[in-house]
Amino acid sequence: MELSKAIKERRSVRRYKRDPVPDALILECIEAARLAPSWANTQVWRFIVVKEQLVKEALVEALTPHNPARQAMLDAPCVVCLAAQRGVAGVKKGETTTDKGDWFMYDCGIAMEHLVLTAWSIGLGTVHVGAFDAQKAEAALAIPAGFSAVAMTPLGHFEEQPDPRPRKGLDEILYLDQFGKAYNR
Amino acid sequence: MELSKAIKERRSVRRYKRDPVPDALILECIEAARLAPSWANTQVWRFIVVKEQLVKEALVEALTPHNPARQAMLDAPCVVCLAAQRGVAGVKKGETTTDKGDWFMYDCGIAMEHLVLTAWSIGLGTVHVGAFDAQKAEAALAIPAGFSAVAMTPLGHFEEQPDPRPRKGLDEILYLDQFGKAYNR
Repeated sequence: MELSKAIKERRSVRRYKRDPVPDALILECIEAARLAPSWANTQVWRFIVVKEQLVKEALVEALTPHNPARQAMLDAPCVVCLAAQRGVAGVKKGETTTDKGDWFMYDCGIAMEHLVLTAWSIGLGTVHVGAFDAQKAEAALAIPAGFSAVAMTPLGHFEEQPDPRPRKGLDEILYLDQFGKAYNR
Repeated sequence: MELSKAIKERRSVRRYKRDPVPDALILECIEAARLAPSWANTQVWRFIVVKEQLVKEALVEALTPHNPARQAMLDAPCVVCLAAQRGVAGVKKGETTTDKGDWFMYDCGIAMEHLVLTAWSIGLGTVHVGAFDAQKAEAALAIPAGFSAVAMTPLGHFEEQPDPRPRKGLDEILYLDQFGKAYNR
């Protein structure tokens, strides 16, 4: 699929079929994430593909109570979880390089979006899920010290293509040379 | 360009031609970022396209001393800067939802990567630049209180396509069901 089509048509999917997803497709998504750029090529992300229903149930327990992804994670044949090594990205000789501290969140966003776009391009749905109790998720996934559970997404065939969500107009998010200066088009 | 080709062939570019980039191509990149998913669709990112050489020079002054992007930012015809509204993503009724606090970094990574992939697909180079003094960058860009300077990238025609950087193997970053459990392929 064309990149521009994937970016324009991708939706966050919260209703899934239970149909299995072939391993080859799962691996194509992970491979796209593996190629993501990262701070000084530190690649702090790790991916855990959860197919085991008991682990999925434990992950759902970690979600915020009204999280619309709860049923999605039970229905979808697998959930991809993203863990990150801490204290590496954005850090040099034990000192953080910038006022943002650990850059793992920025790099995780990039890598997960490679997976999300690739899934869409091969007919699979995803949704970035970040609203969960990380300690519970880390216990369910046996994530060791030094790593954090960052995000997860169901991965599967979707029931229907959701409608697009609204976005701010270009004029609300784009400036020329300095913040607030109109970019005349 | 096919999404998979953009993901496989994208490189971080640090050597640019001074040739101008038509506005239509700049806007195509920003439009891709505008469509990015974000925490509860909060869209906290703002983009500042810097063409004015004096502002570019002030941004270079904000970079870390040995940042390989210094010359790149002077040569490329424009620099796209990413600012984020703080205290909105990952926050509900004034309280952070997760142990990650403000989710602006995750959402900024996603949006900037939409821009980066789109630039590549239309023949333009970029490189995520995060190693800079945010206070200096915020002064150069007149970024108001409540927003932070997060990342920037030169945007332009590249001198040559850089060689690929190494990546960890799938076996180093992929697990099944729990961290550390081999994903047998």
